[in-house]
Amino acid sequence: MPQYYILFLFSLIFFSSSSHASVQDFCVADLKGPDGPAGYPCKSPANVTVSDFVFSSLAKGGNTTNIIQAAVTPAFVAQFPGVNGLGLSLARLDLAPGGVIPFHTHPGASEILVVTRGHITAGFVSSANTVYLETLKKGDVMVFPQGLLHFQVNAAKIHSSAFVSFSSASPGLQILDFALFANNLPSALVGQTTFLDLAQIKKLKGVLGGTG
Amino acid sequence: MPQYYILFLFSLIFFSSSSHASVQDFCVADLKGPDGPAGYPCKSPANVTVSDFVFSSLAKGGNTTNIIQAAVTPAFVAQFPGVNGLGLSLARLDLAPGGVIPFHTHPGASEILVVTRGHITAGFVSSANTVYLETLKKGDVMVFPQGLLHFQVNAAKIHSSAFVSFSSASPGLQILDFALFANNLPSALVGQTTFLDLAQIKKLKGVLGGTG
Amino acid sequence: MPQYYILFLFSLIFFSSSSHASVQDFCVADLKGPDGPAGYPCKSPANVTVSDFVFSSLAKGGNTTNIIQAAVTPAFVAQFPGVNGLGLSLARLDLAPGGVIPFHTHPGASEILVVTRGHITAGFVSSANTVYLETLKKGDVMVFPQGLLHFQVNAAKIHSSAFVSFSSASPGLQILDFALFANNLPSALVGQTTFLDLAQIKKLKGVLGGTG
Amino acid sequence: MPQYYILFLFSLIFFSSSSHASVQDFCVADLKGPDGPAGYPCKSPANVTVSDFVFSSLAKGGNTTNIIQAAVTPAFVAQFPGVNGLGLSLARLDLAPGGVIPFHTHPGASEILVVTRGHITAGFVSSANTVYLETLKKGDVMVFPQGLLHFQVNAAKIHSSAFVSFSSASPGLQILDFALFANNLPSALVGQTTFLDLAQIKKLKGVLGGTG
Amino acid sequence: MPQYYILFLFSLIFFSSSSHASVQDFCVADLKGPDGPAGYPCKSPANVTVSDFVFSSLAKGGNTTNIIQAAVTPAFVAQFPGVNGLGLSLARLDLAPGGVIPFHTHPGASEILVVTRGHITAGFVSSANTVYLETLKKGDVMVFPQGLLHFQVNAAKIHSSAFVSFSSASPGLQILDFALFANNLPSALVGQTTFLDLAQIKKLKGVLGGTG
Amino acid sequence: MPQYYILFLFSLIFFSSSSHASVQDFCVADLKGPDGPAGYPCKSPANVTVSDFVFSSLAKGGNTTNIIQAAVTPAFVAQFPGVNGLGLSLARLDLAPGGVIPFHTHPGASEILVVTRGHITAGFVSSANTVYLETLKKGDVMVFPQGLLHFQVNAAKIHSSAFVSFSSASPGLQILDFALFANNLPSALVGQTTFLDLAQIKKLKGVLGGTG
Repeated sequence: MPQYYILFLFSLIFFSSSSHASVQDFCVADLKGPDGPAGYPCKSPANVTVSDFVFSSLAKGGNTTNIIQAAVTPAFVAQFPGVNGLGLSLARLDLAPGGVIPFHTHPGASEILVVTRGHITAGFVSSANTVYLETLKKGDVMVFPQGLLHFQVNAAKIHSSAFVSFSSASPGLQILDFALFANNLPSALVGQTTFLDLAQIKKLKGVLGGTG
Repeated sequence: MPQYYILFLFSLIFFSSSSHASVQDFCVADLKGPDGPAGYPCKSPANVTVSDFVFSSLAKGGNTTNIIQAAVTPAFVAQFPGVNGLGLSLARLDLAPGGVIPFHTHPGASEILVVTRGHITAGFVSSANTVYLETLKKGDVMVFPQGLLHFQVNAAKIHSSAFVSFSSASPGLQILDFALFANNLPSALVGQTTFLDLAQIKKLKGVLGGTG
Repeated sequence: MPQYYILFLFSLIFFSSSSHASVQDFCVADLKGPDGPAGYPCKSPANVTVSDFVFSSLAKGGNTTNIIQAAVTPAFVAQFPGVNGLGLSLARLDLAPGGVIPFHTHPGASEILVVTRGHITAGFVSSANTVYLETLKKGDVMVFPQGLLHFQVNAAKIHSSAFVSFSSASPGLQILDFALFANNLPSALVGQTTFLDLAQIKKLKGVLGGTG
Repeated sequence: MPQYYILFLFSLIFFSSSSHASVQDFCVADLKGPDGPAGYPCKSPANVTVSDFVFSSLAKGGNTTNIIQAAVTPAFVAQFPGVNGLGLSLARLDLAPGGVIPFHTHPGASEILVVTRGHITAGFVSSANTVYLETLKKGDVMVFPQGLLHFQVNAAKIHSSAFVSFSSASPGLQILDFALFANNLPSALVGQTTFLDLAQIKKLKGVLGGTG
Repeated sequence: MPQYYILFLFSLIFFSSSSHASVQDFCVADLKGPDGPAGYPCKSPANVTVSDFVFSSLAKGGNTTNIIQAAVTPAFVAQFPGVNGLGLSLARLDLAPGGVIPFHTHPGASEILVVTRGHITAGFVSSANTVYLETLKKGDVMVFPQGLLHFQVNAAKIHSSAFVSFSSASPGLQILDFALFANNLPSALVGQTTFLDLAQIKKLKGVLGGTG
Repeated sequence: MPQYYILFLFSLIFFSSSSHASVQDFCVADLKGPDGPAGYPCKSPANVTVSDFVFSSLAKGGNTTNIIQAAVTPAFVAQFPGVNGLGLSLARLDLAPGGVIPFHTHPGASEILVVTRGHITAGFVSSANTVYLETLKKGDVMVFPQGLLHFQVNAAKIHSSAFVSFSSASPGLQILDFALFANNLPSALVGQTTFLDLAQIKKLKGVLGGTG
């Protein structure tokens, strides 16, 4: 079969001429490189292995022994370099009984949540000020459009958990209480821009470590 | 000059063959059409006039006789159909003495503010919980990255004003207080997801017309 | 508290002037409208309810009583209108013992898989012809970059299942065997463009209902 | 082979559940529908045939019996509905001896030109005012970055031709001379905004049918 | 309040696990890094301060003591690193009496202009060769769709000024006269591709420093 | 003409203030820099010449003395740095009599083909499993939507050729046979995920150099 031999050669020749282009199938993050508006620079394809595309840290939930009795375990580009440039990432939510993921936004991504254990009450608020609220059972799915305030609360007496996927490799996470009360934004300014009472602001600043 | 005559003919012929393509220079919104993920359908180019690209309602500031002593006058696609599909819009801010634009986000856009009168203290908070705060003079410019909580406060004893431009024809606007207190989200749930005291929540719900 | 009354009025005034813009928070698909390159037209916000953002059909796996002993249950825009325009969707994989999702691509999306039961062997092939292959346990995550051939095989003796999310509301699905053998593409042409033997082609065309 | 029978059934079942999603492989323009920022609405997939994806009008060059002795034959979305939403289109250039495609821009697309006959001198100018100029032989390729002024001139004594592809289904085409001299823009204003002498402006307005 | 202590700890733990992701809120340009298709690499978030998001050079207009009696003062990414990757930038126009911003395009951005002083006559020309022309008063807004030729002329007897925002952090600027007459493009080629008379070309080349 | 002198000065002043921005007209790839999700870093504009925008290697067809009797000669970003970031590239197809470009996909791009010599039978298969098949003559154009399996076969008794353009500077290329048979994917797994007979798999693995 001499023709087969030629085909084999062809495969070598063909790919040598287009070899650079093939790196564009994916762009595994080189996290040591400088980040850019579209993501991290690509790790050399020669050094990429399947482990860059696999992430095992969501098998166990995060530690929920904290006041919110909840944990978020991210598989964003910083933890999971294989998603760099793909416009997609994942996280795991764990809510002990009474647990809550307080009001927050993801500035750069929409989110889909699927409940894998227990019951979760989730809601978001639109710019038109309408509340979209639902208690979700195992297997139920809910979508949270980009940038809107939303929350999740355990609605079961048992530990509840969920997977959430995002339309960005780096969706960001801005927790409302931390933005308002866990930094040095002066209390008077917080009051002026939220209408909250000063006593309330100082109380939560105390809890969350804020100053000013 | 017979050749000139031919050139003139050419112009007619040339454009008749590519006439459809030319509509793609712009896509003035037909606001009666159904909105879509990329914006409104295009008004027929034959009906487009310069008035579709000009907007005169920002010449005067909005009415600041209200409790925040401030007004936002938008030139978004709903008011200014010429920006449809162009990824850009504008608004005018007016702040009477003591005026404030309370904490808010634009879910789908970054914002650039330029002060045109007075002094404005503006700030935003990052996901990492850092506050970026500055008092701006006339002519100063500040940028607020997409989806992050920010506010503007009059820092002058006179009326202050600014123009703000957005990286979207429809940037959205979610005012924190209204999202929390001006709808039917149950007070207990607001408390659970914000750590605010129930008394504080009920007080602001009363002010803002919220129920539950 | 007369000032509170004014604030309440403000809220009404403020939103009436920006009411159109708020529809852009989301664009729930009106599936009766004509699809477009960016998705479906938006359902009127007045008719949107929380049920547009919630999807319950992934709670149970699909029927795996078929030759591949597997099922894919999609929550794409056609089934779940709330994801329209958000660049995100979800599906559930179910693999009975011996089940397999054969080689396929999603022409318009990257994919993240998370195993929720059992063990799954998954792999994809790059343009450079490299195989990225892994056997995943419960909780393990794997990402499949856009447009590349990949597959999933049950690696457990029990039923395995997974959730997969996509970077598109309508990721598409092209199953290799169906593309080659389940239509009227002439067998000779399949042979010429795949190097498969004619007997092999005719056998699989017979199985999959292809003609020619 | 009862299992084959089941596989065949599977194929029917599988596709019925995901049938809507498959329309997203492509979005052939329904040119009767209203255009939108992302393109035309999609023709129903049931009515799509291979002829929507094939275009035969570039086989012959356009008529070059005109003053520029040149012709552009477009295969943009308006002529070739299959490219709708795909970010790609094509055109054919024909240049008789002495022919020229005068200075022009494509407001929404980059362009790649490949010479298929003769010689063509092509050039573009950057924002930094640098000229990139080359005389191209048959088979030579040149790229013109988005939105920059460029031109093509026949450099052979024979008819020259080329194919040009664009990074948009509707790249637009703004010919400098027509923009300045073939409409009702007042001559004085043209003079003020171009520094051209009034006599020159009036001469070319006369040639190109402009008024004012 | 031991639970508060735990919440405080939670905040530290929570953010340490997601700290990398938070850098994606913004990507302040490191102008020393190599530019890329999506913008500059990001400055390390640890070195970012509020001054990266504030720009004060638009408070005063540029020097209009020149032949066009006008000045453009940009706040593009090169001058204002905070806009990197945000798809938005700003500039200030100043037009002394008689001043004019001659015909130009921004190859990569749409533009919104708002008049802040005086009167400005502005216009753009579409691919279909239609002129959209208006004289704008203080506070009037006009939008110029991406890539189209446009101009601004002082229509007042006093100094006029405006702010212009762009749908890109680096919109580019191609001034027609400079592209044609201020470089080494041979006069004969300019004539061939613009139909201008050679005397006119040589005159303007003389003025603008062009050669050839 | 002292005013002309001032205009000349103006041009220098004007451009010095906006000089950085002008680099954004294009971003010629520095192929030594690390690739990123949006492409390669930009070569310094000072070092860019017209040769970066011109590519001459498509003038001659590739060597078709191989088993497929065909060749693909790419002008992707790796070969043609001028297309970096422009969302566009080109390649040349050559098919000797009997030549075939076997079933393949471009994971990240749509494709337009124009026949320049001979006759070519081309086809693609949609997710809905429909075949779109046509025999194209010289000058005929066909579009292949992103990510779908397609092929080209010489339909003439002479050498046929075509140019193909892509909606990406790096469209990728995944040849079905190579993905299945030219690597170390175990034969049993290939069988399980393609339904092909083991003998067929081993035969083609032998031909194409695959192991396992």
